[in-house]
Amino acid sequence: MWRITFDHPPLNLIDAGTIGELTGPVGALEQDPKVRVVVFDSAVPDFFLAHYDIGGAAPTRNAPPVTPTGMSPWLDVLARIAEGPFVSIAKIRGRARGAGSEFVLACDMRFASRENAVLSQPEIGLGLVAGGAPTHRLPFLTGRSRALEIMLTGQDYDADLAERYGYVDRAVPDSGLDDFVADVAGRIASFDKTALVEVKNLVGEVSLPAHEQQARTGRAFWASAGRPAGRRRLAAAQERGLGIPGDFEMHMGRHLPGLGAHDT
Amino acid sequence: MWRITFDHPPLNLIDAGTIGELTGPVGALEQDPKVRVVVFDSAVPDFFLAHYDIGGAAPTRNAPPVTPTGMSPWLDVLARIAEGPFVSIAKIRGRARGAGSEFVLACDMRFASRENAVLSQPEIGLGLVAGGAPTHRLPFLTGRSRALEIMLTGQDYDADLAERYGYVDRAVPDSGLDDFVADVAGRIASFDKTALVEVKNLVGEVSLPAHEQQARTGRAFWASAGRPAGRRRLAAAQERGLGIPGDFEMHMGRHLPGLGAHDT
Amino acid sequence: MWRITFDHPPLNLIDAGTIGELTGPVGALEQDPKVRVVVFDSAVPDFFLAHYDIGGAAPTRNAPPVTPTGMSPWLDVLARIAEGPFVSIAKIRGRARGAGSEFVLACDMRFASRENAVLSQPEIGLGLVAGGAPTHRLPFLTGRSRALEIMLTGQDYDADLAERYGYVDRAVPDSGLDDFVADVAGRIASFDKTALVEVKNLVGEVSLPAHEQQARTGRAFWASAGRPAGRRRLAAAQERGLGIPGDFEMHMGRHLPGLGAHDT
Repeated sequence: MWRITFDHPPLNLIDAGTIGELTGPVGALEQDPKVRVVVFDSAVPDFFLAHYDIGGAAPTRNAPPVTPTGMSPWLDVLARIAEGPFVSIAKIRGRARGAGSEFVLACDMRFASRENAVLSQPEIGLGLVAGGAPTHRLPFLTGRSRALEIMLTGQDYDADLAERYGYVDRAVPDSGLDDFVADVAGRIASFDKTALVEVKNLVGEVSLPAHEQQARTGRAFWASAGRPAGRRRLAAAQERGLGIPGDFEMHMGRHLPGLGAHDT
Repeated sequence: MWRITFDHPPLNLIDAGTIGELTGPVGALEQDPKVRVVVFDSAVPDFFLAHYDIGGAAPTRNAPPVTPTGMSPWLDVLARIAEGPFVSIAKIRGRARGAGSEFVLACDMRFASRENAVLSQPEIGLGLVAGGAPTHRLPFLTGRSRALEIMLTGQDYDADLAERYGYVDRAVPDSGLDDFVADVAGRIASFDKTALVEVKNLVGEVSLPAHEQQARTGRAFWASAGRPAGRRRLAAAQERGLGIPGDFEMHMGRHLPGLGAHDT
Repeated sequence: MWRITFDHPPLNLIDAGTIGELTGPVGALEQDPKVRVVVFDSAVPDFFLAHYDIGGAAPTRNAPPVTPTGMSPWLDVLARIAEGPFVSIAKIRGRARGAGSEFVLACDMRFASRENAVLSQPEIGLGLVAGGAPTHRLPFLTGRSRALEIMLTGQDYDADLAERYGYVDRAVPDSGLDDFVADVAGRIASFDKTALVEVKNLVGEVSLPAHEQQARTGRAFWASAGRPAGRRRLAAAQERGLGIPGDFEMHMGRHLPGLGAHDT
């Protein structure tokens, strides 16, 4: 069993460096003939993975390089987790928004702290189309209407509501979450790897979006990031605290409607 | 933000006139470059949209004209809501049965009064095959078995059970429903229209039935309406109060099993 | 209305005989012009259908004959239930694991005793790939992640959790289960058969896996049964009580992680 802990305080923002740092372990997981299961968690209080550091730097202005799958590095690493020969579990404490939500959606299972987990896809509030294919993964988990609601409102979802919607497998009391996930992962680690991989692949035959569909979300993201509406909202969000510890990052859902105040 | 209120007392029955009245606003929603979201509600106590006025007139005996999409006017307007460049929300108080249920299933989201909402597809109890494609929309919301249960039993589903099944997004206490929907719609109305439409279309890539499948349900409906079993049950239902305010319309689910008493 | 009761104490194990015994009634259900609905239940306390009698005999060592559909007799009879011109309801008291779970997943609806039902797919704990297509039916009921969790952990799911996941339609208090199912089945039995069959087929257009996908699970099962990991775990399970009344059969989920202790 592997455990990969995100430890990039204060917010666990995702950036090009994070993607690079993920690619190595994911490649190793793909190659390791023995590993059955990987658990992803966070060492940063209140944040699992805040979101992509879209305000951070140049990467937000230039489309990323394309991988052999025809997808961007981010989509590529997500697809390799979703389709790889190992079982992936997200143990969610804190906020998993935007690309952080996309990351946990690519994991095979998601268990969330009842008291201390928040998931959302806030991109719409920034005038953006989410680029890591949550539009195509959520319907296989929550059904069409709840996927639309999540994607079109940018609301914050706590663990209980996320469970009712199927956004996470289960909400678990925080005090029991470690033991719960250790038990699930321990079970899987005790099983035969060949059988695990075959079962995962068979389930995937009817529950995974096509790479071309995933790639389309990446292209839509980059197009939206270049539009005035996206640039304006992004600037407004940065002014209000995007990417900086504070109320905006703690309760982003509440702040999104105000960002478009100057739209026509 | 648009609001369209059904106000056709005493039952908000759907008929050819209703469909015609919907086509105008839906066309306007498609063309308006600014509108982001439309909320559908009812001004009639106890009824959101009772059902199609199948006992009303000739339309039940003659298949309707075919639109350019190859679908009937009803299927056509539903598909234009489900696929159109605007977000549609059904705020459900009262009964949404049959075509009323088909209508809310075509909306992007559905929020229902916990104390005062009932959804069902009673067609099966009238010997009919539902013709507005609920057979193809429900599995993307509730999963296969609950879709079969809804379609094959014709039972009444209250808001809480509808939420557990995914038939509605959420059941909301009646006293808070207006504020809840206003908040959701207000959020969406504050966002960028181009991004909203792209997100809706991307989700649709993996969560919408094909037009040909939808059209097949329309043909199955007309065939079933012409069969003796359908005609007999329809006559029995009219005798017991179909389309007239009273116990049959309030609690239709209970009455359906009795309609086939004379079947062989 | 038909009722088929499994009465093969002490565990209601499924074997080649069971499959043969099912084929007759299923063929009759297919041919009967009047029957609308069949309810499957168990006369054996604590067990609906324990699982396939994999430790029983030669059948576990030899792939079964192939039917005209290109599927094994087990997959064939399941598909005929899932796709046949009648409505099938599983009334679940006791354990439905492995092939027992596959059986109820092939039924159109599943209602489970809140106090006395357990569902699981324990094959993974035996080093096996489940061969009756639960990998392809569960995603249409529970969504991708919960399907993966069920298939990859082999855990026991009680009725309430199974309902939250969509593994069953509803958990019903045991004292009310008989009346509940009688009511649902009675409703359906009162409806027009032609309409019922058309509705079932229409729902199936977007909620059934392809036969070729189902057949693939059968081949994966037989391959896994021939691998050392599968043979070792099966022997360990038999040593601990597989197929014999006792704690292993009552609480199989707890025992599975221990079976691979000697794996490398």
